[in-house]
Amino acid sequence: MSCIKRFRWSLAPVAIAVTLAFGGAASARNGEPIQPIEPFKATNPAMVELGKKLYFDPRLSKSGVLSCNTCHNLSMGGTDNIRTSVGHKWHQGPINAPTVLNAGMNMAQFWDGRAKDLKEQAGGPIANPGEMGFTHALAADVVGSIPQYRAEFKAAFGSDKVSIDEITAAIAAFEATLVTPNSRFDRWLRGDNAALTAQERAGYKLFKESGCVACHYGTIMGGTSFQKMGVREPYKTANKEIGRAAVTGKDADRFNFKVPTLRNVELTYPYFHDGGADTLTEAVDVMGRLQLGRTYTAKENADIVAFLKTLTGEQPRITLPILPPSADATRRPVPFD
Amino acid sequence: MSCIKRFRWSLAPVAIAVTLAFGGAASARNGEPIQPIEPFKATNPAMVELGKKLYFDPRLSKSGVLSCNTCHNLSMGGTDNIRTSVGHKWHQGPINAPTVLNAGMNMAQFWDGRAKDLKEQAGGPIANPGEMGFTHALAADVVGSIPQYRAEFKAAFGSDKVSIDEITAAIAAFEATLVTPNSRFDRWLRGDNAALTAQERAGYKLFKESGCVACHYGTIMGGTSFQKMGVREPYKTANKEIGRAAVTGKDADRFNFKVPTLRNVELTYPYFHDGGADTLTEAVDVMGRLQLGRTYTAKENADIVAFLKTLTGEQPRITLPILPPSADATRRPVPFD
Repeated sequence: MSCIKRFRWSLAPVAIAVTLAFGGAASARNGEPIQPIEPFKATNPAMVELGKKLYFDPRLSKSGVLSCNTCHNLSMGGTDNIRTSVGHKWHQGPINAPTVLNAGMNMAQFWDGRAKDLKEQAGGPIANPGEMGFTHALAADVVGSIPQYRAEFKAAFGSDKVSIDEITAAIAAFEATLVTPNSRFDRWLRGDNAALTAQERAGYKLFKESGCVACHYGTIMGGTSFQKMGVREPYKTANKEIGRAAVTGKDADRFNFKVPTLRNVELTYPYFHDGGADTLTEAVDVMGRLQLGRTYTAKENADIVAFLKTLTGEQPRITLPILPPSADATRRPVPFD
Repeated sequence: MSCIKRFRWSLAPVAIAVTLAFGGAASARNGEPIQPIEPFKATNPAMVELGKKLYFDPRLSKSGVLSCNTCHNLSMGGTDNIRTSVGHKWHQGPINAPTVLNAGMNMAQFWDGRAKDLKEQAGGPIANPGEMGFTHALAADVVGSIPQYRAEFKAAFGSDKVSIDEITAAIAAFEATLVTPNSRFDRWLRGDNAALTAQERAGYKLFKESGCVACHYGTIMGGTSFQKMGVREPYKTANKEIGRAAVTGKDADRFNFKVPTLRNVELTYPYFHDGGADTLTEAVDVMGRLQLGRTYTAKENADIVAFLKTLTGEQPRITLPILPPSADATRRPVPFD
């Protein structure tokens, strides 16, 4: 654990140092430890459009019922707003579904960072028996049996060969576009003083001064490190996930989880890897006590919550895709067996 | 059963008589037994927009996972493309989910017509233990606890009181907009001779002459009568649904089902009340033999299938709604208990 703490605190001086440049300037606040989200420019629109279809296509699941959007619902902050997800045959998921919004800016994917990028992540749920319950080969077989899909793979990749590689590349290309710029906080960072109220600014000041920003910094305010859940006090949960240790095999990594983004946090409840906190008020209270050894007053808590609600950016404007129909030869879903 | 047959055949002469006016005219074909779908003009856009949110909101289910769109997926022809739907705790539904597209033009809702309109239908799945598994009171409690929803009810209904009445009225108002005009067949009906190929026109001619049109006539080519499944030969199925008899209690109504619309039938597989036919080829073959006592040749079948695929209209262009987040006081979903 000592090396974890060292890692964690090694970030803090950097973060705190850059905040010294903070002031009330009307121009962009470049010295802040948090940077505004930039709009995303897609380089391969055909691949993005194909990826969007696949993201919404439940035929990537054995049952024909579950799609990426089931658990990472773009109507709901890119999450499912339940503690842990419902998978194939109503399997109870082991961990809270992280948001897909701005997820491309994480250093790695999943709470334990076991996937290096969006593409690698996208293959996970498809073949997980407790999630979409399918196999990569069968998913590719289904998609490749559909003429309109093959034409779209041809347009996106130059070949109509369909394997899990192209499927996950297309899904990742779509997911990379799911950024949420122009939150009120980002407008304030860019110099719009009227974008935040006095309470929200007070909340941000406290967020920095009391240490939250040591982990929740950068463009997405998280996603840059693994940290112990329960630094000053242990976190009590019935959840069995051990975090980063499942990847590294090191006991020192037990209960280390990727710091989640705070972008759109108003929409991504419930909070923590076990979904144990239903409200921001509860989450701020727990984080203060367990991670920082600080009990926020009701007013302090309310100020931080008010600040956190300014992090809701423009949600991706998604036109629901119309999925190409299965061909006669397409393998049919098996929801019940 | 005799009265059923009488009813069925009483329609046929009307349908066949009007087809006599059919010709190759370049102007609109007004004498056809099928009429084009008109675009829908909403009179209360605020109610439609609210209804769209509710249609996509899984918080109308006990689990927080299932929404109207789960089984009536607007990416997939307004259906779920599986034989029978997956409900709460993976309950296996008893009957194939009918399409929501153009559903407002049905004489009644559900396969057995037990709901008189879209509004009455919308309340059914919410409170069905094997579908969304919730109660009307709890669903209204959840929605009414969310400030942004209350504001939208105020805008739509003039009051921020939320009960199942307003919820289902709003959902129905949205569903009524889900029409699919301008199919190739409708363009042909309007006089565009080039809209159909020779094979498709041959398929339509056979569709009329061999009797399909006796039941599948009107704007949505169905939805105007209950008919026996298996007129000339019994339909063999393990499905236990008894159809209209469940509503009327009359033995004569056993196995009578509402004639489904054929609009967008290319997208609404699998077919029949039990979802027993995976492909249009199979469905046309079964219908010909069981309902009309006619075995179509492979060419005849292919012609009719080619015609049926011209019935795919413009799918509703849906911008995915962003759902208002739950308040701290909002009752949380219970996916597992």
